Amino acid sequence: MNFRDTYQDKKILITGGLGFVGSNLAHTLLEIGAQVTTLDIADPESGANPFNLDGIKSQVRVIEADIRDGQMLREAVEGQDIIFNLAGEMSHIGSMTDPFKDLNVNTVGHLTLLEMCRLHNPDVHIVFAGTRQVYGRATYLPVDEKHLLTPLDNNGVSKRAGEMYHIVYHHVHGIITSVLRMTNTYGARMRIRDARLTFIGWWVRQLLEGKPIQVYGDGKQVRDMNHVDDVIDAFLRCACHPKAQGQIYNLGGEPITLLDLAKLMVEEFGSGSYELVPFPENRRRIDIGDYYGDYNLIRSELGWQPRISHRQGIRRMLDYYLQYAERYF
Amino acid sequence: MNFRDTYQDKKILITGGLGFVGSNLAHTLLEIGAQVTTLDIADPESGANPFNLDGIKSQVRVIEADIRDGQMLREAVEGQDIIFNLAGEMSHIGSMTDPFKDLNVNTVGHLTLLEMCRLHNPDVHIVFAGTRQVYGRATYLPVDEKHLLTPLDNNGVSKRAGEMYHIVYHHVHGIITSVLRMTNTYGARMRIRDARLTFIGWWVRQLLEGKPIQVYGDGKQVRDMNHVDDVIDAFLRCACHPKAQGQIYNLGGEPITLLDLAKLMVEEFGSGSYELVPFPENRRRIDIGDYYGDYNLIRSELGWQPRISHRQGIRRMLDYYLQYAERYF
Repeated sequence: MNFRDTYQDKKILITGGLGFVGSNLAHTLLEIGAQVTTLDIADPESGANPFNLDGIKSQVRVIEADIRDGQMLREAVEGQDIIFNLAGEMSHIGSMTDPFKDLNVNTVGHLTLLEMCRLHNPDVHIVFAGTRQVYGRATYLPVDEKHLLTPLDNNGVSKRAGEMYHIVYHHVHGIITSVLRMTNTYGARMRIRDARLTFIGWWVRQLLEGKPIQVYGDGKQVRDMNHVDDVIDAFLRCACHPKAQGQIYNLGGEPITLLDLAKLMVEEFGSGSYELVPFPENRRRIDIGDYYGDYNLIRSELGWQPRISHRQGIRRMLDYYLQYAERYF
Repeated sequence: MNFRDTYQDKKILITGGLGFVGSNLAHTLLEIGAQVTTLDIADPESGANPFNLDGIKSQVRVIEADIRDGQMLREAVEGQDIIFNLAGEMSHIGSMTDPFKDLNVNTVGHLTLLEMCRLHNPDVHIVFAGTRQVYGRATYLPVDEKHLLTPLDNNGVSKRAGEMYHIVYHHVHGIITSVLRMTNTYGARMRIRDARLTFIGWWVRQLLEGKPIQVYGDGKQVRDMNHVDDVIDAFLRCACHPKAQGQIYNLGGEPITLLDLAKLMVEEFGSGSYELVPFPENRRRIDIGDYYGDYNLIRSELGWQPRISHRQGIRRMLDYYLQYAERYF
């Protein structure tokens, strides 16, 4: 039996369900027969966009709530089989200008979710959306899960605390939790309004508006990236595989320099240009340098690997925004 | 010049200054000529005890405040040369029954302190009191600073977040911070009222009251421990050594089984007994098993090593409580 078949009639809660990855998850889960609830604070700054549920809104139970709201959380988690926990602050820059908000959402929020599950739904499976930002600057490449965790910004600290709570609640309280450390994720339904959350989204907007893509520094920084459909495949595997219980996995993909990515995006768009610009000081100080992840653990344990090439994925993403760009500006 | 001489006339803030380690630091700092301010919320559950400043109260500026109180923190940090940051929740058990309080004090509190320093005293040196609890269960012994960090309880999560913030503020904002990961610390002025904070304090009380020391499990758990005077020596070295900037160090001492420690304490006390009792369930689930730390890094970089033998240290501690026990019950 294909693991996707196990989702038939499963009750699923997606926190951050109006956001980029959360909404793509909702679309896929409905296709494979699940009953989907989304919980989202619907703050556009966080990446939430009601248009992300376009076409499926009538099939989804949509809750507008803050994950720090215990009463709402309790109602949302009761009766669920699986929670994909994607809510949270993810802006590195934002975490440096408002560290208390970043901390509060990413720790109090997840602790509230975990406490509500412990009290009212201890048999639920939770998959938490972690980030490769928790590693900080790589001391070796590719970075595996044993790499030291020395985050370079406040968001890395709060996201790591969120991870640790999920693992503590597994070991101490027996709740089934897993963590996926995502790297740069791109695709349809991502925020492209500005560079606050992701540079790839920002580059899409620059292309669409006929402006040159701005690449910071010399563009030789190496990164890896995953198309959102590959990331969703990882979430789906994680929630139903016994080996994933209490486990933390890296995602990852083929390394590429930012310059090569800019070239690829210009090629696939069919027009446009890029330019090298100096690092803004506030970004230089928290930049992680070269990074790509080792995803052998999730490959060997859950059979996951990225299947969508960068060119293919960029093509799909650009097609989406050529059609719906104005919904994201 | 002996490093202790550099403290002459230095302005020092000790957060958690009414507590066990903080108050011992205050006594020593006054002896070596420093000007001491303590900041403490004065909550007896946290280990604070006004008697801990007995004999020096008139020479210390004592501030009663919560480290989450930005305005009070601002006044306290202004003008200081060094901050020994020892405030915080440290109860493993308490963190499981009230995880939000543990989180709030140990993350919002330290973030407030760091923000106030960034804004109003960016040249200060901060030494943060970390804990070996951040490692969780050891996968090898002795545990060095490269060991994976998989805390087993909520307090380990929040303490690790506090560490990470100190390091981020060093790398991004240039504030000079260091972290000492303390192991079991014992000596005069520790809380002995109950087993909430440390088992050694609790054992002292059991001896004093003529009750058998209760050792959980088979007593073969290995731990290391430091007398508080050795720990203070480490704090003093850390705050004035250039190599310590942005660094995290383990403390540690000679490994001993809990059973051998119980025997040693009975011997030095001259009477009393111990008994093996089953682990209470809430402790078994968060027990870290065998642990002792590798302190070669701080030895090679700062010249620190424990100088007080367990027997000598236990003797000193018991002498203190034979005189002042009623102030701690």
